[in-house]
Amino acid sequence: MTEKIESPVVGVLMGSSSDWEVMGNAVEMLKNFNVPYEAKVVSAHRMPDEMFKYAETARDRGIKVIIAGAGGAAHLPGMLAAKTTLPVLGVPVPSRYLKGVDSLYSIVQMPKGVPVGTFAIGEAGAANAALFAVEILGTTCPGLAEKLAEFRKAQNAKARAMELPA
Amino acid sequence: MTEKIESPVVGVLMGSSSDWEVMGNAVEMLKNFNVPYEAKVVSAHRMPDEMFKYAETARDRGIKVIIAGAGGAAHLPGMLAAKTTLPVLGVPVPSRYLKGVDSLYSIVQMPKGVPVGTFAIGEAGAANAALFAVEILGTTCPGLAEKLAEFRKAQNAKARAMELPA
Amino acid sequence: MTEKIESPVVGVLMGSSSDWEVMGNAVEMLKNFNVPYEAKVVSAHRMPDEMFKYAETARDRGIKVIIAGAGGAAHLPGMLAAKTTLPVLGVPVPSRYLKGVDSLYSIVQMPKGVPVGTFAIGEAGAANAALFAVEILGTTCPGLAEKLAEFRKAQNAKARAMELPA
Amino acid sequence: MTEKIESPVVGVLMGSSSDWEVMGNAVEMLKNFNVPYEAKVVSAHRMPDEMFKYAETARDRGIKVIIAGAGGAAHLPGMLAAKTTLPVLGVPVPSRYLKGVDSLYSIVQMPKGVPVGTFAIGEAGAANAALFAVEILGTTCPGLAEKLAEFRKAQNAKARAMELPA
Amino acid sequence: MTEKIESPVVGVLMGSSSDWEVMGNAVEMLKNFNVPYEAKVVSAHRMPDEMFKYAETARDRGIKVIIAGAGGAAHLPGMLAAKTTLPVLGVPVPSRYLKGVDSLYSIVQMPKGVPVGTFAIGEAGAANAALFAVEILGTTCPGLAEKLAEFRKAQNAKARAMELPA
Amino acid sequence: MTEKIESPVVGVLMGSSSDWEVMGNAVEMLKNFNVPYEAKVVSAHRMPDEMFKYAETARDRGIKVIIAGAGGAAHLPGMLAAKTTLPVLGVPVPSRYLKGVDSLYSIVQMPKGVPVGTFAIGEAGAANAALFAVEILGTTCPGLAEKLAEFRKAQNAKARAMELPA
Amino acid sequence: MTEKIESPVVGVLMGSSSDWEVMGNAVEMLKNFNVPYEAKVVSAHRMPDEMFKYAETARDRGIKVIIAGAGGAAHLPGMLAAKTTLPVLGVPVPSRYLKGVDSLYSIVQMPKGVPVGTFAIGEAGAANAALFAVEILGTTCPGLAEKLAEFRKAQNAKARAMELPA
Amino acid sequence: MTEKIESPVVGVLMGSSSDWEVMGNAVEMLKNFNVPYEAKVVSAHRMPDEMFKYAETARDRGIKVIIAGAGGAAHLPGMLAAKTTLPVLGVPVPSRYLKGVDSLYSIVQMPKGVPVGTFAIGEAGAANAALFAVEILGTTCPGLAEKLAEFRKAQNAKARAMELPA
Repeated sequence: MTEKIESPVVGVLMGSSSDWEVMGNAVEMLKNFNVPYEAKVVSAHRMPDEMFKYAETARDRGIKVIIAGAGGAAHLPGMLAAKTTLPVLGVPVPSRYLKGVDSLYSIVQMPKGVPVGTFAIGEAGAANAALFAVEILGTTCPGLAEKLAEFRKAQNAKARAMELPA
Repeated sequence: MTEKIESPVVGVLMGSSSDWEVMGNAVEMLKNFNVPYEAKVVSAHRMPDEMFKYAETARDRGIKVIIAGAGGAAHLPGMLAAKTTLPVLGVPVPSRYLKGVDSLYSIVQMPKGVPVGTFAIGEAGAANAALFAVEILGTTCPGLAEKLAEFRKAQNAKARAMELPA
Repeated sequence: MTEKIESPVVGVLMGSSSDWEVMGNAVEMLKNFNVPYEAKVVSAHRMPDEMFKYAETARDRGIKVIIAGAGGAAHLPGMLAAKTTLPVLGVPVPSRYLKGVDSLYSIVQMPKGVPVGTFAIGEAGAANAALFAVEILGTTCPGLAEKLAEFRKAQNAKARAMELPA
Repeated sequence: MTEKIESPVVGVLMGSSSDWEVMGNAVEMLKNFNVPYEAKVVSAHRMPDEMFKYAETARDRGIKVIIAGAGGAAHLPGMLAAKTTLPVLGVPVPSRYLKGVDSLYSIVQMPKGVPVGTFAIGEAGAANAALFAVEILGTTCPGLAEKLAEFRKAQNAKARAMELPA
Repeated sequence: MTEKIESPVVGVLMGSSSDWEVMGNAVEMLKNFNVPYEAKVVSAHRMPDEMFKYAETARDRGIKVIIAGAGGAAHLPGMLAAKTTLPVLGVPVPSRYLKGVDSLYSIVQMPKGVPVGTFAIGEAGAANAALFAVEILGTTCPGLAEKLAEFRKAQNAKARAMELPA
Repeated sequence: MTEKIESPVVGVLMGSSSDWEVMGNAVEMLKNFNVPYEAKVVSAHRMPDEMFKYAETARDRGIKVIIAGAGGAAHLPGMLAAKTTLPVLGVPVPSRYLKGVDSLYSIVQMPKGVPVGTFAIGEAGAANAALFAVEILGTTCPGLAEKLAEFRKAQNAKARAMELPA
Repeated sequence: MTEKIESPVVGVLMGSSSDWEVMGNAVEMLKNFNVPYEAKVVSAHRMPDEMFKYAETARDRGIKVIIAGAGGAAHLPGMLAAKTTLPVLGVPVPSRYLKGVDSLYSIVQMPKGVPVGTFAIGEAGAANAALFAVEILGTTCPGLAEKLAEFRKAQNAKARAMELPA
Repeated sequence: MTEKIESPVVGVLMGSSSDWEVMGNAVEMLKNFNVPYEAKVVSAHRMPDEMFKYAETARDRGIKVIIAGAGGAAHLPGMLAAKTTLPVLGVPVPSRYLKGVDSLYSIVQMPKGVPVGTFAIGEAGAANAALFAVEILGTTCPGLAEKLAEFRKAQNAKARAMELPA
């Protein structure tokens, strides 16, 4: 696919390959918009140095937006944000017992000065983070803005066509 | 100030003038970065038509990012997002009894297809939404990216200089 | 059925056909009371203009009560209420991870001036919203008030007849 | 005032005179619309027989809507609803330590068959319950429907006129 | 069984036969101690008059302790307590979406003057309410006190005998 | 007072003298009913051996009911219950940050086999635990049962006499 | 295995053999590090005397760290801590309805003067408590510190080797 | 004081000088036990590199235990733990709106492999983290173990001496 040749502008990071079930929804959305991306496992707690290096080099590598998903005491989005001034989008991955409330609080409650744009717990949040990345890119790329408008129209049409049991 | 002459690129909306205590932190941050903005009261529930019109015309008016703060059953950010494909940043304004947990859930838990980037409850969240707007603008404006780097350095220096009681 | 001929007095709206499993309980209750109704998918986030139009025209179309079910950041009931002065009844549809606490807070915590009468999370809430709509209609329709009294008697009889294992 | 001569159509009940600070907002709203009402202390736990009698006789006395506010293990709205088929509107009065989450759950989570339309915790909820009562009455009283439309217009105008600090 | 001949001293009430799965644990415990009991479906919301009558006549009928289980907006224990000065023990039956937090708050947060002794959510709570009823009876019945001591010893022995995987 | 001469039948324990503000409400209620009591500081965590000794000897010393108040990780009621088969009544003392939700969960969620009858968070709960102790004693003491009936009548009269602002 | 010959330095306690599914993760981790341990069922509520005796004698028996897992009103870790000045590590075992929030609050919210180091709800918490015990031992045992460093390296390598679907 | 001459064995870190009100309680406790310590502001989000360096060099500098306090999206304890195998003790500093529930979840819910021993929200938690650090040191230092035993005795004596109002 041609978007593979282009260098990635969105980085999709997650703490473990087990987060793919959720974070795969972000990748799928980026593919829909033909946005060049890279998806990687970068664990805040098990790969802290790699995480810092990713954040430090991302802008120079051409990354414009970072999407990071993590669960439980979810430090990945916030620590990436501490090491870069690129927009970081956080996705709370649902946890086994607290169902992602812990993930949500760990991501959204960032202190003044280090923002993380946070999305819904789970699959919807992952897809929306990617859509939001497209919206960011669309602020300066008319082509993407147009595609977003089409996406919304298709979404509207699909909802309008929904039928209920008689 | 020269930024007043430029047309605004960030819209800061809030449901009531009583939200200013929180949302004023967003405006202050935008001023720090000399980002042209406009701040308005637009209530989802009391000014629904004006809200829709704002969202519909924002892109054409040159707005690139919308920041919206609301409390309780906080519908302003999500409904703006339903009417524009510009990035919408949501700030949960603390509510009297539930302390903003209701605001947070009403803003962050958006369904797939209509994203709102959500920030912390209250003052920190408002400031961070603005900082995040700057980060978005900084993805294509090297000058802002540089200012963000300086902001971080100053922030680091200030933290390093903090002293504890003996 | 004869009630189909009459024009609807209750509108049952939901954000997606996937809400039917819950909201179907409202429809079933309205059928029990032979109350003319219409059931539609109207999504606040994906069909915002259709939603506004529905609310704007409902009273003139003869609708007396609107029942709206939504999940997560549930804006449908509150935004309908912002656009009509008909009574709007909100049903929090359970969400995948937060189990409808998000839906409940998004619906019930409306600001002063725009009320939504809110019911229990899930199936019971949907059935009760419909029953409540019948109660509203019953305030001026003696026939319905009588039916409600019979419904209660039957309910009482059924509960009294319940048997426990020996 | 002439509305005092008319017999009340809305009953505003609360468990204690200490609930007046919250529930007075309901009375004030009813007064704004010149809706004849009665306000009484009727405690579910300390006046159970009086409560039942109120519910049993309300319809015959001309009451069309009952508004009930209670805090903590708030049983007043639900038990009134168990004894009448008039619409019962519940207002969760904030509690000292749990801030009304207990009140909210005790009121909104009614089982199938006995509905209570529930409103926001505290003052806003009390005012909105009254406004909702007016909306119910307005479904068959064009004069009230018109007043509601005017109320909304005034509300819109007031919001539009709000100014933010320079 | 001989305890069937004796008139019941403990009443075990529940709002629906569907509560038996939980409340059956109370009955089983009472059987273990040969405490004469009666188990009945008495719904606060669907059988309010029967509920009041039960509470009013319980003491004269020889009942010494009432155990009441209910879920959601759980009003049965508190309303029984409002109508009798016998000790009322409340069991929060788990609800479908809120898992019994609503039931717990609705039961335990009673206002000053009308107490309900509350136990854990679900099966353990039902069994413990019954055990607690035995403890109450044991304060004046040495035979039961002795049985309780034996029960504890057996419980201790069983726990001590538990083995873990090698 | 003559009840001071009688040996205590109710023990009121609390983890610290700072709990008196809450637990004093239990003592006041017992005084109202002239029930002989003793009030002591017995900390589960700082006086574990004294706590065990209290529980072990309480029945032989004539105690019939134990009321125990504690906050945070509140282990006092449950550990007393583990060491006696007297009825133990638990009062969740509000904690500084979690407002007593931690205290409530620590007290009410006892495992099967070791019951604690739990009351509302704070002052109301303390008063009600004492009232419940009187109810327990009243199951075999006709004099107390009569006093309880009078208490309820007075409570009812007081509620009925409450007046609302005009 | 040779570590069986050495006397145990870590005690792993749990309230019931049913906690093994969670607490077995602690034992497995200790085995990985060849740390001599003992695992026992010691129930705070059903074996209170045995629990006290364990805590009183642990230090003299050579135990250096105690790991205790419990669910619901989880008193085991805190009561052990009340009876020993060895470090006590608490593991909140998930409960049936509240999913371990009750366990967590019951363990972590200890009052000043009696600390319990608390870990995550469930399996991860149990494994981490054991790892933390190794870290404690590693503060004075260079061999263990080295093994911990190797463990981290292996963990890092494993995370780095994770692959995502193409 | 002589402990100032010795090099520190406990590091007390906090994200801001505003955390001192809470974290000062840890320092005070360490002083009581004459444990050499250092207290520093090290912010995870504003001083990420300094934080990593601290963790990397702590063991070689003679630090044996790290205490870290942070509020909101509290990443400091967990990220330190990711970079060292010394025991890290986490103190949830109360946050403005969520009162430290966010801080608690962000600290305690660490994934398998990177433990943080977590203590109560606020002042008690800070004091207890320090006491726990002393307990860790006491596992190999008989002098400290003795002091801990004395501390407990004094604590017991103080609790026993508490008096209640007559």
